[in-house]
Amino acid sequence: MISFLNDYSEGAHPKVLQRLVDTNLQQATGYGTDNFTTEATAKIKDAIDCPQAKVCFLTGGTQTNQIVIDALLQSYQGVIAVDSGHINLHEAGAIEFTGHKVLTLPGKAGKLQAQTVADYVQNFYEDDSYQQMVFPGMVYISYPTEYGTLYSKQELTDLATVCRKYHMPLYIDGARLGYGLMSAAADMTIKDIAQLADVFYIGGTKIGALCGEAVVFTKNNEPEQFYSFVKRHGALLAKGRLNSLQFLELFTNNLYFDISQHAVAMALKLKQGFLDKGYQLYIDSPTNQQFFIMDNQKVQELSQQVLFTRWEKYNENQTIIRFVTSWATPEKDIDQLLALI
Amino acid sequence: MISFLNDYSEGAHPKVLQRLVDTNLQQATGYGTDNFTTEATAKIKDAIDCPQAKVCFLTGGTQTNQIVIDALLQSYQGVIAVDSGHINLHEAGAIEFTGHKVLTLPGKAGKLQAQTVADYVQNFYEDDSYQQMVFPGMVYISYPTEYGTLYSKQELTDLATVCRKYHMPLYIDGARLGYGLMSAAADMTIKDIAQLADVFYIGGTKIGALCGEAVVFTKNNEPEQFYSFVKRHGALLAKGRLNSLQFLELFTNNLYFDISQHAVAMALKLKQGFLDKGYQLYIDSPTNQQFFIMDNQKVQELSQQVLFTRWEKYNENQTIIRFVTSWATPEKDIDQLLALI
Amino acid sequence: MISFLNDYSEGAHPKVLQRLVDTNLQQATGYGTDNFTTEATAKIKDAIDCPQAKVCFLTGGTQTNQIVIDALLQSYQGVIAVDSGHINLHEAGAIEFTGHKVLTLPGKAGKLQAQTVADYVQNFYEDDSYQQMVFPGMVYISYPTEYGTLYSKQELTDLATVCRKYHMPLYIDGARLGYGLMSAAADMTIKDIAQLADVFYIGGTKIGALCGEAVVFTKNNEPEQFYSFVKRHGALLAKGRLNSLQFLELFTNNLYFDISQHAVAMALKLKQGFLDKGYQLYIDSPTNQQFFIMDNQKVQELSQQVLFTRWEKYNENQTIIRFVTSWATPEKDIDQLLALI
Amino acid sequence: MISFLNDYSEGAHPKVLQRLVDTNLQQATGYGTDNFTTEATAKIKDAIDCPQAKVCFLTGGTQTNQIVIDALLQSYQGVIAVDSGHINLHEAGAIEFTGHKVLTLPGKAGKLQAQTVADYVQNFYEDDSYQQMVFPGMVYISYPTEYGTLYSKQELTDLATVCRKYHMPLYIDGARLGYGLMSAAADMTIKDIAQLADVFYIGGTKIGALCGEAVVFTKNNEPEQFYSFVKRHGALLAKGRLNSLQFLELFTNNLYFDISQHAVAMALKLKQGFLDKGYQLYIDSPTNQQFFIMDNQKVQELSQQVLFTRWEKYNENQTIIRFVTSWATPEKDIDQLLALI
Repeated sequence: MISFLNDYSEGAHPKVLQRLVDTNLQQATGYGTDNFTTEATAKIKDAIDCPQAKVCFLTGGTQTNQIVIDALLQSYQGVIAVDSGHINLHEAGAIEFTGHKVLTLPGKAGKLQAQTVADYVQNFYEDDSYQQMVFPGMVYISYPTEYGTLYSKQELTDLATVCRKYHMPLYIDGARLGYGLMSAAADMTIKDIAQLADVFYIGGTKIGALCGEAVVFTKNNEPEQFYSFVKRHGALLAKGRLNSLQFLELFTNNLYFDISQHAVAMALKLKQGFLDKGYQLYIDSPTNQQFFIMDNQKVQELSQQVLFTRWEKYNENQTIIRFVTSWATPEKDIDQLLALI
Repeated sequence: MISFLNDYSEGAHPKVLQRLVDTNLQQATGYGTDNFTTEATAKIKDAIDCPQAKVCFLTGGTQTNQIVIDALLQSYQGVIAVDSGHINLHEAGAIEFTGHKVLTLPGKAGKLQAQTVADYVQNFYEDDSYQQMVFPGMVYISYPTEYGTLYSKQELTDLATVCRKYHMPLYIDGARLGYGLMSAAADMTIKDIAQLADVFYIGGTKIGALCGEAVVFTKNNEPEQFYSFVKRHGALLAKGRLNSLQFLELFTNNLYFDISQHAVAMALKLKQGFLDKGYQLYIDSPTNQQFFIMDNQKVQELSQQVLFTRWEKYNENQTIIRFVTSWATPEKDIDQLLALI
Repeated sequence: MISFLNDYSEGAHPKVLQRLVDTNLQQATGYGTDNFTTEATAKIKDAIDCPQAKVCFLTGGTQTNQIVIDALLQSYQGVIAVDSGHINLHEAGAIEFTGHKVLTLPGKAGKLQAQTVADYVQNFYEDDSYQQMVFPGMVYISYPTEYGTLYSKQELTDLATVCRKYHMPLYIDGARLGYGLMSAAADMTIKDIAQLADVFYIGGTKIGALCGEAVVFTKNNEPEQFYSFVKRHGALLAKGRLNSLQFLELFTNNLYFDISQHAVAMALKLKQGFLDKGYQLYIDSPTNQQFFIMDNQKVQELSQQVLFTRWEKYNENQTIIRFVTSWATPEKDIDQLLALI
Repeated sequence: MISFLNDYSEGAHPKVLQRLVDTNLQQATGYGTDNFTTEATAKIKDAIDCPQAKVCFLTGGTQTNQIVIDALLQSYQGVIAVDSGHINLHEAGAIEFTGHKVLTLPGKAGKLQAQTVADYVQNFYEDDSYQQMVFPGMVYISYPTEYGTLYSKQELTDLATVCRKYHMPLYIDGARLGYGLMSAAADMTIKDIAQLADVFYIGGTKIGALCGEAVVFTKNNEPEQFYSFVKRHGALLAKGRLNSLQFLELFTNNLYFDISQHAVAMALKLKQGFLDKGYQLYIDSPTNQQFFIMDNQKVQELSQQVLFTRWEKYNENQTIIRFVTSWATPEKDIDQLLALI
């Protein structure tokens, strides 16, 4: 059965796995002090054009969000997120586990607006009764968002401006960063991301790696004793090489971006195919996640031959469904899907 | 330079890596719901002869200790450990991060004695003033211990008896389980471990895997909604296959135990070589960690050519040093080392 | 200046203070093991007609909410509350501090609807994707609500029915319980509260005490080792007598309810006065908090002579304002206020 | 039955209670923003001769220790304490509840030695392996100690010097501060305490108040947004007046020190009486707690007529027992006790 369930159904890109094989019996020191980590860090700093960056390799997205947010917040602070944000809905309370409240604000097409943030935070400086509320200490967004949409460079610049005004770091969850940046709709590069964000992560798990996310602190703002902090969260791998070697390969010869581009191309072909057959978009996504509205009966039929996600009920007769492509999606699977709808 | 620093300097056993390569493009569902996980679980249940076992694959040792202990304790309870226990000294406060106190008791040769535990816990039932203290909710030990020593079957049975009497689960940290069980000094098999422990983990990171530990709940005692619990700790891998495929290979054709045996054989050859040259043991370990006392000057000289750990000061003139072998240690490295001392 | 800022501006009801004076030099054992606590517990159990109740005296409302919720939830669970709920907005993250998410749902006039809760929770039993979300473990409501409104007995029964269906304890925050129950609009007694709630607290701080809230577990459901749990939250008073003596007096000769009735009578006189002068209610509250809409200029003028709360902006020209009466409000203050508007 | 169980068996000193009565119906703003709090703060700053001090009133000792330690530590840090320290043994894990490890060191007569601290902390700067351990972020001591003993000014100065060298705040738990300072053996005043400590608290619960401890930050080091921090721990009283009014009275006309002196005088008379009858001291305490060694049979007899604490077993035939005096101990109770032994 062909699958469009998610972007983490296969192992790693073959070149990434080959790098692990090639280096397998070389000895390396533990806990991220090894040379592979040094090399991978240099590659990333170069790619983002940010010489002062500090890079730390972690293993998964929820772990990364938990650690970065807990590290940057003071203990009495909360993190602002759009209400559809991954940290609010789909991380089983990993942020609250560290004692911090997720302060949710409404968004548009999955995106947080700079003005919404400014209006909210301003209250804390004007109204004494806000002292009984959780003080907002940072802003979390995803690029692309949970709905596959993209912030424009202007939108992100506006958010960053508000964040700086109120001394809140801007953190960008880049679980699917490559799939966003390689969209034709993106008006930014990874260098812009590095400039606008105070901290962001480059997602590996969903883009070619077995596991691994690269956290980047861009403004000389790596928290003190971050190594201990990661250890204490149970996230410090003895074999730091596992994550760093994968990123070393992904950031060699543009691999990360090339395989991201493939996924986006597949998604757009899929999208066009649905539109051509008269299906309605639930949301207009230019990246590797596509959302459609489909009659329940058709959903039922299609699910006999294709794996995809029933996102939520649209109305009594129709369902919102999601299709995801990845670095590993063969074009023939798209053709086969389009023949079925 | 040859290295005896630790047992996690290389990647994975080549067969383990090959298994990842062979299955790489097979699609699998996420978060540990895949067939590889089902297969690996079956292999482990078979190996430990415990049909009712629940197995969960996590990524590292500190993460595993943190999650298991937090899951089994009531929030007001603490965990008993010997004062040299890994969770007390070398996990950067990962247990306290979850709100639980490590209740330390003195040990012998790194081992916790059943009577010591019984005497301590009995106070909580007899003396009202203990209500102001942290109630002991479980017992943590390592097999082998942090000093490479081994509990006898009788010692472990005694501990398990005390634990059952006081309704405290017995948890065995098996980061180096294979290196313990394959020692000639071991009078137990992994089946005995499964019978005596309420929960234990089979260490992969130090025995042939890139990463990965297999937690086993042996007494129909997997905590409710453990999946959510793992997620909320940031420890649920999207690609659950990464850990389970490695264990699938390790538990095929006895690989886990064969490679463990190699490490122990290398350690004993190393130990005998040191003894033959007149060096004094700091502790008599029958497993893959060996501790010696060496003159500071000799330590200085040797460290020019060999990597090993200066454990701690023994006296003004001598240092306790540690040598660790692993599944990957070539016999020629032992020969080379022994020629140098 | 006369004040309608809140219901905690004075010390204690004189009879309550007198009780402290009368017993002052009697010796009592510590930490709530004293006879005053036993007596006060008996009075409360009698008043609520619930012989199996367990009563625990704590010191403030946020502390009480934090401890009760943390004690009743499993660590991976969250607490459902209406989005205007006190625990969501005005406790500075005290619930999240204990690691639990507040799961907010929309309400009507500050009240949570049974159907809203049922629809939400049902998802967790039907849709696998909810496994990545925080599981709802209990329901929190306030009686009266943060807007002074009251649940009817039917509404509360419906909520309790949903809670039982889904095995979620129903917890009622009674910071102003007396002010709710003594409203003419209330169709319940404290005995009904005890029957419908799994746990609730009787607020003392806002109703006649210097401090103190009485938590009542009504269904043989006091958490194990709750004493240790309270201690570990830093909330166990050495002189448990302080809280219990005050409740002993409050529950002698109906004092708690009599002084509550006075506050409600004052509030209704105030409300009628505002209505008579043509002011618009923001919300129709039958208890001791009253919300009106007032022109900004009038607000400005009035605030020269009266203390009250500017709740929030209503529109460019008008503000929502809040007046609170209490057991201590003199009728002449109401008259004086009404003369000013 | 006469009682020497503890120093919190009665209510408050009558003058303290009278102050609550006298001010009872005066209105005050909430949450510590009231004038009584301002006045009490001024009294304390004057008494300790520390104009830049910030004072915060909390309700109990464990709560105070929990909040101060959690506020001053970075989240990855632990607090150093002597192994007999109150936070290590008798607070039910309140420190660990906030995620911090108590790092215990051995002491002498209940006191932590400066050199012991220096030797321990120095390791973290010299030995890389300490990165896997919990970093020491502050030092906790009690004055007087849990055994009633006192640090000399020299000992405290030495500790403060080590603390400053390693950038660790020195925190003094003054639950019984008055009973220490008014001992003839004390070579310090409260002004010295304020100078040597970075933060300390003046205990009220055990010295004349119904409840209440006054935390003093002496070095312009009150944590940011401490108000929110206290709220989030559930410790912010709506009626802040309750604690501050009591301290206002205790720091009027030297009351705090006068009543402390009485307790110490009573303790010394008791001690002399025991010594005269040939009883052996367990530890030589110059303050209001006295520890003796007594034959088990005599303990049994005496406990028929007097309340006191069986501290722990001394040997098979003898028990360590504790007698505590307080501001409220009548001299006739001492006489009566001495007649019985």
